[in-house]
Amino acid sequence: MTVTTGVRARLYVDQALDAGRSVDLSANQSHYLKHVLRLGPGAEVALFNGKDGEWRARIETIRRNAGSLGVETQIRPQITEPDLWLLFAPIKRARLDMLVQKAVELGVSRLVPVLTERTEVKRLNADRHRSNLIEAAEQCERMTLPEIVEPRPILDVLSDFPTGRRLLVCAERGHAAPINQILEDDTGEADRCAILCGPEGGFAETELDAFQKLSFIRFVSLGPRILRAETAAISAVTCWQAALGDWRRRPPDRDST
Amino acid sequence: MTVTTGVRARLYVDQALDAGRSVDLSANQSHYLKHVLRLGPGAEVALFNGKDGEWRARIETIRRNAGSLGVETQIRPQITEPDLWLLFAPIKRARLDMLVQKAVELGVSRLVPVLTERTEVKRLNADRHRSNLIEAAEQCERMTLPEIVEPRPILDVLSDFPTGRRLLVCAERGHAAPINQILEDDTGEADRCAILCGPEGGFAETELDAFQKLSFIRFVSLGPRILRAETAAISAVTCWQAALGDWRRRPPDRDST
Repeated sequence: MTVTTGVRARLYVDQALDAGRSVDLSANQSHYLKHVLRLGPGAEVALFNGKDGEWRARIETIRRNAGSLGVETQIRPQITEPDLWLLFAPIKRARLDMLVQKAVELGVSRLVPVLTERTEVKRLNADRHRSNLIEAAEQCERMTLPEIVEPRPILDVLSDFPTGRRLLVCAERGHAAPINQILEDDTGEADRCAILCGPEGGFAETELDAFQKLSFIRFVSLGPRILRAETAAISAVTCWQAALGDWRRRPPDRDST
Repeated sequence: MTVTTGVRARLYVDQALDAGRSVDLSANQSHYLKHVLRLGPGAEVALFNGKDGEWRARIETIRRNAGSLGVETQIRPQITEPDLWLLFAPIKRARLDMLVQKAVELGVSRLVPVLTERTEVKRLNADRHRSNLIEAAEQCERMTLPEIVEPRPILDVLSDFPTGRRLLVCAERGHAAPINQILEDDTGEADRCAILCGPEGGFAETELDAFQKLSFIRFVSLGPRILRAETAAISAVTCWQAALGDWRRRPPDRDST
């Protein structure tokens, strides 16, 4: 019942983690540890790379733009996280940043930007989103980085959609069943899922008609109010995680580490 | 299956609504209709006041800072919305604005800012939040404005907490049951509920000890990742609405109006 943590900083690295290895810090990481957290040699840092679990490391050397950590012991083994994709139409910058951050916190495994007829934002700044993803994953104590792919037209994405993956389409208008009802009915085939949220103006008729021909799609309803695009995405991912995802697990207990 | 709406603008007013009445526009509303939406006399506007349902009105006169609408016919009768309170520790401005906006979209009926040991933000700008509430309610086609009350210390709020209202406390650490499990078990007494989300640093030991003595409290878990305060609030409200709230209803069908 305490929030005290054994380690103050938690960083994603793309290097292998194992006892006795030395890991290099990027310029940003060095700056963050030295000047934001004011840590020096000997201070503890938690590391994860999405593959080797979470490790306790200790600062060996640290300068303004570089540094190194010595990897000591594993805190947590790598775990398998839910396989949930989020397909979303890019929206304006502040809302999109928020959507990406929340998707990471809520455990989305792959972010798939899709272009629809009414999508007004056509491009993503890959570097900014990658920084955003990393920061959110570090903060929420997640063990992986979700993947983010290049934007593609929605009908292209659906035309080569993988076999065996269910797609829940959040639909404000037309026939749709309450999301929890769909999730309750769907437990047998829930291993791999995707959620699709449209742009602010909703989907076009032609898009909805195309969706209806696809057997892997279910239309889900998120209640009587018109949700903004990012709210719909956050809410739908929440419902899936709570019903079928990993929400029966608890955050790691850092008191015992 | 179309998003075409019969009315382009939707405004909250604090005046009575009935056929044949005239309603005055505020300076902001006049500016919005005239200069943002570029509407003139004769244009249709939807109005709601939280009591009399939603009405179609028509611009009678409009100037830069004033104007009037003639109320014509009721589009939707007033409906009863779920009785769900959200107790939250104020957080920094951008995240708090987002939290308030999403709480409105997701149908919270009362926003209760609470001060906890680790709450860093102690005051709310009431005027800004009221504008935010109104804008969100207009946008999401909600029929009411949620109430927002003055910040009070959490233990004071709990000491005069109303009889018969369940309080779900989102707890990252310590014993808590998955939120959907609590909601499934709780269907018999779900009419009035409240959700409490703590500040970024979590609750203090003394607060958690005090909570545990209160019979109306249930500790709920939102999965294995550490959610930011506003994400926890949005997710918990979502789970409640999807399981016990009004998410079995659909948005109003404006095609038929």
